[in-house]
Parts: sequence; structure tokens; C-alpha cells
Amino acid sequence: MITLYTWTTPNGRKVSIMLEELGLPYVVKPVDIGKDEQFSSEFLAIAPNNKIPAIIDDEAEDGPLSIFESGAILVYLAEKTDRLLAPSGAERYKALEWTFWQMGGLGPMLGQLGFFMTRSKDKPPEAVERFSTESARLLGVMDKRLSEAPYLAGDDYSIADIACYAWTQAAFTMIRQAAPAVWGERPSIERWLKTVGARPAVQRGMAVPKV
Amino acid sequence: MITLYTWTTPNGRKVSIMLEELGLPYVVKPVDIGKDEQFSSEFLAIAPNNKIPAIIDDEAEDGPLSIFESGAILVYLAEKTDRLLAPSGAERYKALEWTFWQMGGLGPMLGQLGFFMTRSKDKPPEAVERFSTESARLLGVMDKRLSEAPYLAGDDYSIADIACYAWTQAAFTMIRQAAPAVWGERPSIERWLKTVGARPAVQRGMAVPKV
Repeated sequence: MITLYTWTTPNGRKVSIMLEELGLPYVVKPVDIGKDEQFSSEFLAIAPNNKIPAIIDDEAEDGPLSIFESGAILVYLAEKTDRLLAPSGAERYKALEWTFWQMGGLGPMLGQLGFFMTRSKDKPPEAVERFSTESARLLGVMDKRLSEAPYLAGDDYSIADIACYAWTQAAFTMIRQAAPAVWGERPSIERWLKTVGARPAVQRGMAVPKV
Repeated sequence: MITLYTWTTPNGRKVSIMLEELGLPYVVKPVDIGKDEQFSSEFLAIAPNNKIPAIIDDEAEDGPLSIFESGAILVYLAEKTDRLLAPSGAERYKALEWTFWQMGGLGPMLGQLGFFMTRSKDKPPEAVERFSTESARLLGVMDKRLSEAPYLAGDDYSIADIACYAWTQAAFTMIRQAAPAVWGERPSIERWLKTVGARPAVQRGMAVPKV
């Protein structure tokens, strides 16, 4: 059985969507980051970076295995089941490059934009401008990619789409309202959001954890 | 033959170190980001995110393959050669989790700290404080990990160490001077920096590109 430590954030939802897509049974342990539960010693033992999501797989090949970092968990689950990530060839590395692109670019930059636009005390204009410009650039890169192929890795839905979905949906819901110029015109992303968002497993995964 | 598009940055050096470790022949194409060469149409065709590093492998299994995102390139080269990333088991996923941790955490946060401390016009105190605190936290997480194991993935040197080396070395050189409280006391990182930095392939990779 897999235990998923998660919360109601885009990074957490990547893993619940993946588990729902794969149909793997799992137990959800909500980690309320509003109450600093990510700093508990129980959680630290499996997630030394103090961030959700993390999993423990009791049935990994070498015995129980804990993994943190949503990108690493997606790759692990894909390789465990041989699904949603090609085992070799160009499509494998296209999926990995867009997964790393989300982890190093789209996620951190949208996250910083969200902070400086809303929760920041000073809302420093230079920081708001910097993360607005970079988020708009990244959304433009993604829109261009999705104008060339149905999914980020190419013809097939993969872990790259799962990695990007919850963050892009959050941007569509929030940033499009609060900063219309950052969202701009993204017809290919909007087509992809509808296609991916219509998947039953995505809808179930987006509702995890129930709080 | 592999062509490497790179510049004198930590992300670029990850790939030159990896190629040197593997002993693969490669041609270097410097992309001077100070002259905006990353926006040329030639580079955009292989790196749709307009960032170095990127590679083209003329001898990939399905024909010429271009890959961007340093993390994806490290995984590709490891899997091409079956080196520096275990093919399965716990050590594989420990290497991947620390590689993703670098890509999503250490890299972006040190990068933002560097920007707001030095190149920023306003140097907004809230932004400097935010990225100082997060960088110090991340360095603490890494130091703790390296107090428990010789390398990030465990007993063996892997792509996780290559991913983290150039960024951590830059922090050791620059942030330790400019913001001593952020570097703090990191004895295990300093031990690891010496060990990794003594590898001839790391020294050769850190000197790429010659400009």
C-alpha cells in the first residue's frame, strides 16, 4: 500500500492525480501546512525538505521506500507501473524535459508571483514585475508547445501533463483574474486544460485531500 | 556526437561535468546570454524555453534528439550510458529526489537571492529576506543529508551531486562572503564540496565553455 502525505496545493495534487490515473490503492495523510504540520518529526523523517508531497511505498522492490519531491514521485510511480512515461526513446525525454521545466520554472515562478501579489506585506513593485514577466514568458512557452502537439510530451498524455495541470489550472483561475496581462491569450493552454480537466482521474485527484 | 549549448553558469556546468564524467565526446557551442544569444532562432529551435543548457545527440536511438532542461539532460545521459544513476531500486529514487530538489528548490532560490542581493535596482528588503531565509533553510537540509551519507543519493556519487555541485560551489564562493548568515556553518557540505571538487572531470567541466 502507498501512503500519500499531501495538502490542498498544486504540488500535492500532482501525486493524487497520478495515483488516481494508475488506479493504485493509497491512504491519504493530510499535512496541514497552515498549522505547520510539515515540521513535525514524523513528517520530517520521510520528507527531509519539510514539504509535501511525500509518499511511502510499503511494497517497493527493496522494501519500504519513502520519496519526496513531486517530480521524483511521478517518475517513481510511472516506472513502477510502466505507464505515463515511455520506457525509452524521444517521447520519454520530451516528458522528462517538460516535467523538469515545470519543477524548475513554472512552479517556482507562479509560486513567487502568487506570494508577491497577495500574501506579501510590501508587495515590492520590482518583485511583482519580475515574477509577472517570467510567468507570462513561461505561459507563452507552454502555449506555443501546446499549439504544436496535443500534450506536452507529444502525442500522448504523460507525467508532464500531470506535473503542469494543477499549477496551470491555478494560474487560469487566479492569475487570469488578478493579472490579466500575465495570463494573456493562451488558446492552446485553454484547449489542453479542458481536455486534461475532463479526465475522471484528474477530477478525483484534484479533490484530494478532503478537508 | 553530442553538441552542448551552454554558458558559464551553474546550470550549464552540470552538463559539461556530466559529459566529462562519462568521457563522451562533445562539441561546445557557447550561447552568450549577456548578448541575448539565447533568443536566436537557431537556439530556440532546440531550446523552446530560451535557456541554456541544451544538447543535440546525433546518435540517439530514434535519430537526432534535442533535449533542454539540465535535469532532463542529466537523466538522459545517465540512461544512455547506464552510469551515475542506478537503473532501479532505492538508490535510483534517492538520486532523482535530490536532483528534482536542486531543480525546484536550491537552484531557483539561490538564483533569486543572487538577483535581489546584487543585480536588483531596488533590492527590496522583503524579497532579500525571503530568499535569504529559504536559501539558508535549503542549505541546512542539504548539510543534514550530507551528515548522514557521503553523497546525496547515499553511498555513491550520482547525477544528484552533479546537479547540486556548481550551484553550491557558487553559494560557497559568493553568498558566504556577501551574506555570511545565509551560508552559516555547513561542515558536511564543505566536506562534500572538497570531495566532489577534487574529481578531475568536475574540474574540467567547470572550465566549460572557454570564453
